[in-house]
Amino acid sequence: MATHKLLLLPGDGIGPEVMGEVKRLIDWLNSAGIAKFETDTGLVGGAAFDAHKVSISEGDMAKAMDADAVIFGAVGGPKWDAVPYEVRPEAGLLRLRKDLALFANLRPAVCYPALADASSLKREAIEGLDIVIVRELTGGVYFGEPKTITDLGNGQKRAIDTQVYDTYEIERIGRVAFELAKKRKNKVTSMEKRNVMKSGVLWNEVMTQVHKREYPDVTLEHQLADSGGMMLVKWPKQFDVIVTDNLFGDMLSDIAAMLTGSLGMLPSASLGEVDVKSKKRKALYEPVHGSAPDIAGKGLANPIAMISSFGMALRYSFDMGALADKVDAAIAAVLASGLRTADIKSEGTTAASTTQMGEAILKEL
Amino acid sequence: MATHKLLLLPGDGIGPEVMGEVKRLIDWLNSAGIAKFETDTGLVGGAAFDAHKVSISEGDMAKAMDADAVIFGAVGGPKWDAVPYEVRPEAGLLRLRKDLALFANLRPAVCYPALADASSLKREAIEGLDIVIVRELTGGVYFGEPKTITDLGNGQKRAIDTQVYDTYEIERIGRVAFELAKKRKNKVTSMEKRNVMKSGVLWNEVMTQVHKREYPDVTLEHQLADSGGMMLVKWPKQFDVIVTDNLFGDMLSDIAAMLTGSLGMLPSASLGEVDVKSKKRKALYEPVHGSAPDIAGKGLANPIAMISSFGMALRYSFDMGALADKVDAAIAAVLASGLRTADIKSEGTTAASTTQMGEAILKEL
Ligand SMILES: CC(C)[C@H](C(=O)O)[C@@H](O)C(=O)O
Ligand SMILES: CC(C)[C@H](C(=O)O)[C@@H](O)C(=O)O
Repeated sequence: MATHKLLLLPGDGIGPEVMGEVKRLIDWLNSAGIAKFETDTGLVGGAAFDAHKVSISEGDMAKAMDADAVIFGAVGGPKWDAVPYEVRPEAGLLRLRKDLALFANLRPAVCYPALADASSLKREAIEGLDIVIVRELTGGVYFGEPKTITDLGNGQKRAIDTQVYDTYEIERIGRVAFELAKKRKNKVTSMEKRNVMKSGVLWNEVMTQVHKREYPDVTLEHQLADSGGMMLVKWPKQFDVIVTDNLFGDMLSDIAAMLTGSLGMLPSASLGEVDVKSKKRKALYEPVHGSAPDIAGKGLANPIAMISSFGMALRYSFDMGALADKVDAAIAAVLASGLRTADIKSEGTTAASTTQMGEAILKEL
Repeated sequence: MATHKLLLLPGDGIGPEVMGEVKRLIDWLNSAGIAKFETDTGLVGGAAFDAHKVSISEGDMAKAMDADAVIFGAVGGPKWDAVPYEVRPEAGLLRLRKDLALFANLRPAVCYPALADASSLKREAIEGLDIVIVRELTGGVYFGEPKTITDLGNGQKRAIDTQVYDTYEIERIGRVAFELAKKRKNKVTSMEKRNVMKSGVLWNEVMTQVHKREYPDVTLEHQLADSGGMMLVKWPKQFDVIVTDNLFGDMLSDIAAMLTGSLGMLPSASLGEVDVKSKKRKALYEPVHGSAPDIAGKGLANPIAMISSFGMALRYSFDMGALADKVDAAIAAVLASGLRTADIKSEGTTAASTTQMGEAILKEL
């Protein structure tokens, strides 16, 4: 059995708590002889700042580069609101994405039937919802230069951010979306603002070319990002795979996640290019939810998104699709049994702490 | 009685139809001696392209500069998908905003009780919703330079858009938001992405200063634009006035509008600075909905957003608040009577065409 190297980066807020439940699962997989994971742990975000005055240390970056997959909790919180921009908690996550070249962020927005009523949307609008947002993650306004604040004198400053996209960046994220659609409902919707942004014009042009040249059998639709956002609210089930840039992806995937009523349940995968020789790809897995500092340390956090993110790691990094399916089934079974953390509690269900939920899922497995 | 100069720019798609109903209202106000409007009409968007190969002619721009208010329909449609970027329909609207220096875009998102069930959101989430999004309209990534596509050779192109904000731009839109909040529920929520964008850092800093210095009695909250979008979907009633930049405002205001279930009903105002001498300000009023090419020319369009936008003109440009209230009341009365255009039709209501709806509102007045 091959040994897989994992780097666990719990981060801040509820990060360590939900990571604890993944650790429990990994330990069990190891001791039951189902898989062989070698885990190491590092600091990221506010936790790294508190220890080393950086958002991630060079040592932990080296470990991340060396790992087969990074399992990431969450970063940030009011405690670090005043730290210098360069070492703010989020910088650690952004550096991981950039240095590991994790250009493809997959964010499923799935409505768990048991939770359909937790959504602010009507049941009929989201019941059975199963879409994936494919977000470009290493380009656009997140990393473009110049990115500066200049003092103009007279009490005036000027802030500049730069959105940059090259053809190859759009092509490779397009391919990820089309490949994914082929295994799903065969439809890709590309979203940009070509009516205002030159990057939107190029995005639209390149997606159209990739489609025509390489994926003519997949349906491709184009939508302006603002009306795409509207359509997501109005009738999300019209989508299958949505592909969009880094900033629109940030907004649209959060909105899609919230629609489902299952925010504490949703995983994400950030993937790099497949290496031609080793056939491996760098990858980071993290829950869609944030660090939720208000409930941190109270045993209230829902570990399902984190466990489910680890499930994506099994599937995308370690070719253990069958085991991933079992993890998904265990989550569904525990939900069906009526166990609920505080975020998804409703009448007639049984309250569970972070640990109780993690243990119940493990027992189911 | 003062004479007010209006420029009507119906534009494309359903624009001319809904503008027709405003024209009917204006004619009646004139003939009944209630007000004195002098109207002129121009071409914008695809209509201007078809006539002059531009998105708005210099002649019509001059008229717009000279008018007391511009009443704008909608622009765009698949017919002009392939026209050169510089003369695409949207360019006409963007030029009007920029050259008239209409930096403040007010977009109310109100849920009409009669239409609460048209929303994809649960009734309790949106019933009674009444928020305003104040969107910066002449800065940011819409107008920043460089904005280019460059050929890099080898089949590669590079697209660049630039987000630029200066202190004064953030200050003045902040003031609009705080002034508005003072007349409402006294709360402003500022949204940006300070964890990723330098413009977000400056935006946050300047809003905080303006608040402290000039509006300490108004509540100010800051939210990251992605979680702000989430909160808008989850529980929109927590907001009163949201202030945000041009691109986030584009996304968030469309989403807010769609939440209400009243998209065909929502007006907007785009305002310039108040001139110290004349006490006048340049202004453009337009419905939030687009040109809806699929239903254009069929008498199906809902004219309420357009009429209500004219109502905003009465209020903000001509100091006729009482008359604007009457227009709002007439719209509410007609809805209460059960009359509905196709977009808001539900069981037990009476179908109306664009014209029938316009006439009914006028009769009510
Ligand atoms: C934490 C933050 C930098 C990040 C982003 O903006 O990408 C987060 O919102 C996300 O979506 O993963
Ligand atoms: C038509 C388009 C240029 C415009 C925008 O992006 O501002 C529209 O979406 C709007 O919100 O008014």
